[in-house]
Amino acid sequence: MSILLASSWTDISPYFSQWKKTLDQEQRDIDVRLYPDEIGDIDDITTALVWDPPSGLLASLPKLKLIHSLGMGVDHILKHEDLPEGVPIARIVDPDLVTRMSEYCVHSILHYHREADRYDRYQAERLWKPIPYPAASSRRIGIMGMGKIGADTAMKLKSIGFDVAGWSRSPKNVPSVPSFHDKDGFRHFMQHSEFIVCLLPLTPDTEGILCASTFNMMPDGGGIINVARGGHVVEEDLIAALDSDKLSFAKLDVFRQEPLPKHHPFWTHPKIRITPHNAGITNPETAAAQIIKNHRLALRGLTPNNIVDRARGY
Amino acid sequence: MSILLASSWTDISPYFSQWKKTLDQEQRDIDVRLYPDEIGDIDDITTALVWDPPSGLLASLPKLKLIHSLGMGVDHILKHEDLPEGVPIARIVDPDLVTRMSEYCVHSILHYHREADRYDRYQAERLWKPIPYPAASSRRIGIMGMGKIGADTAMKLKSIGFDVAGWSRSPKNVPSVPSFHDKDGFRHFMQHSEFIVCLLPLTPDTEGILCASTFNMMPDGGGIINVARGGHVVEEDLIAALDSDKLSFAKLDVFRQEPLPKHHPFWTHPKIRITPHNAGITNPETAAAQIIKNHRLALRGLTPNNIVDRARGY
Repeated sequence: MSILLASSWTDISPYFSQWKKTLDQEQRDIDVRLYPDEIGDIDDITTALVWDPPSGLLASLPKLKLIHSLGMGVDHILKHEDLPEGVPIARIVDPDLVTRMSEYCVHSILHYHREADRYDRYQAERLWKPIPYPAASSRRIGIMGMGKIGADTAMKLKSIGFDVAGWSRSPKNVPSVPSFHDKDGFRHFMQHSEFIVCLLPLTPDTEGILCASTFNMMPDGGGIINVARGGHVVEEDLIAALDSDKLSFAKLDVFRQEPLPKHHPFWTHPKIRITPHNAGITNPETAAAQIIKNHRLALRGLTPNNIVDRARGY
Repeated sequence: MSILLASSWTDISPYFSQWKKTLDQEQRDIDVRLYPDEIGDIDDITTALVWDPPSGLLASLPKLKLIHSLGMGVDHILKHEDLPEGVPIARIVDPDLVTRMSEYCVHSILHYHREADRYDRYQAERLWKPIPYPAASSRRIGIMGMGKIGADTAMKLKSIGFDVAGWSRSPKNVPSVPSFHDKDGFRHFMQHSEFIVCLLPLTPDTEGILCASTFNMMPDGGGIINVARGGHVVEEDLIAALDSDKLSFAKLDVFRQEPLPKHHPFWTHPKIRITPHNAGITNPETAAAQIIKNHRLALRGLTPNNIVDRARGY
């Protein structure tokens, strides 16, 4: 009847300590253990609360009733081939995380829409030179992935006045946001979109979706914002598209390897802006309650909330 | 029965040509003249459409029935002491201008809220270092001037999740935005506000309002965004507040002298970001119709729309 917090990341301890403290405060009768030092008797562990869990760990827990992701994505769990069958996998759906992510996307769109980089250069040259720019209503933004974060981003961009469309695997109905779906709609959607925001789950279908053939569907001089997963981007294709001026910018919060290695060409590319996977991070204060609730539901043999479809990948 | 386009600015010709073309297209029977070359018989001029008009010009037009600002502000007109009595002064109120201005303000708030400058420096150092930041709901934004642009900015910031308050001379009622007014409310408002957006009209009461005593009311480390007029800022007080860390940033779109002189210390101050008075600029395409309408109303002896109170200054 214990919750085990586990990750293969070496520098996650401060964040895990914060989680343990918050879970303890939320519910004092629940035993929370930190992997590996506090694992104790593995027969006690019924919930594993994980971010990129160590290989083999989940398969080694005989009484596991729930695998809970520490984020909205579960690709870091599903990549393991020895996942125990029949144990439900839940993800966090937290309004605080949603709003931080959509806020990051809105900021990024406005940054490029209002030519912030060019004004920076002009200031360094003491150059007073207004740059014409289109009305937001004629700036076309495409959102890949119209789940909770995509829909929230779309509504915020709409409230500012942008022309927003969405694309997702299955048809979505977000009020007054034109929606494309599946492979047939993909080309139309990409042709429509000057700026792309990627919020897709990482699945075998979406791995490498931001590649040369996708970029070539877009209007010349467009740009991409990736806040989903590094695996969505074919890195050499992105650099080629930026270097050929097919794309004018990329803002990236996620990478195939994190932290982004010091020698990686993205760091110094003049058209790439980097943030260190912090578009949104789950806040224990706002998300602890749903973990506790799911832990108790699983213990009672009931279906926890926000369960992931393993086959679909999200 | 002619409209005279006039400004003391030397580099405004391309913009004026665009205005003349658009007004011509809108209504071919109205004679539009560019000052000074096309002024012709001054008895023909009934509407002066101006931006910072040349000294003495307005007083020299005997048949003037309307003075029309090319922007939302009229300080550039009211500063002239020889303005003809009894001639109404109108300003432009254009949704396109409103939305461009509020969009600029939202972008600026998000830029500092999401620590864009620090991430720039980190990228230059190839440093992967997430920076904690408050939820938007606990970031307090104060908007000085709750007219059309202020109210629109407030609603957009609210939709993103910020904690927004407004201050204006007279009480305003913007839904769910706490409103302070007059001198009594000013201190409470400033104490409340981490980030200030100045959208006030420039009048004798608001000249130099962004000064040391105002900054000292604010929480330490706050910041200001000025998109109103350069005359609102006491420049040496702003530099002192930034240098002492009382303020952490200033984003400025307007200056006491424009273009900002090459030697001005604002250009190179590490905590100041400069844009060249382009937060919003009136678009002839969207604003021509209201000018024509006001011109015709004035000709018929009727009261034009969006008339300014000379005594109040806006």
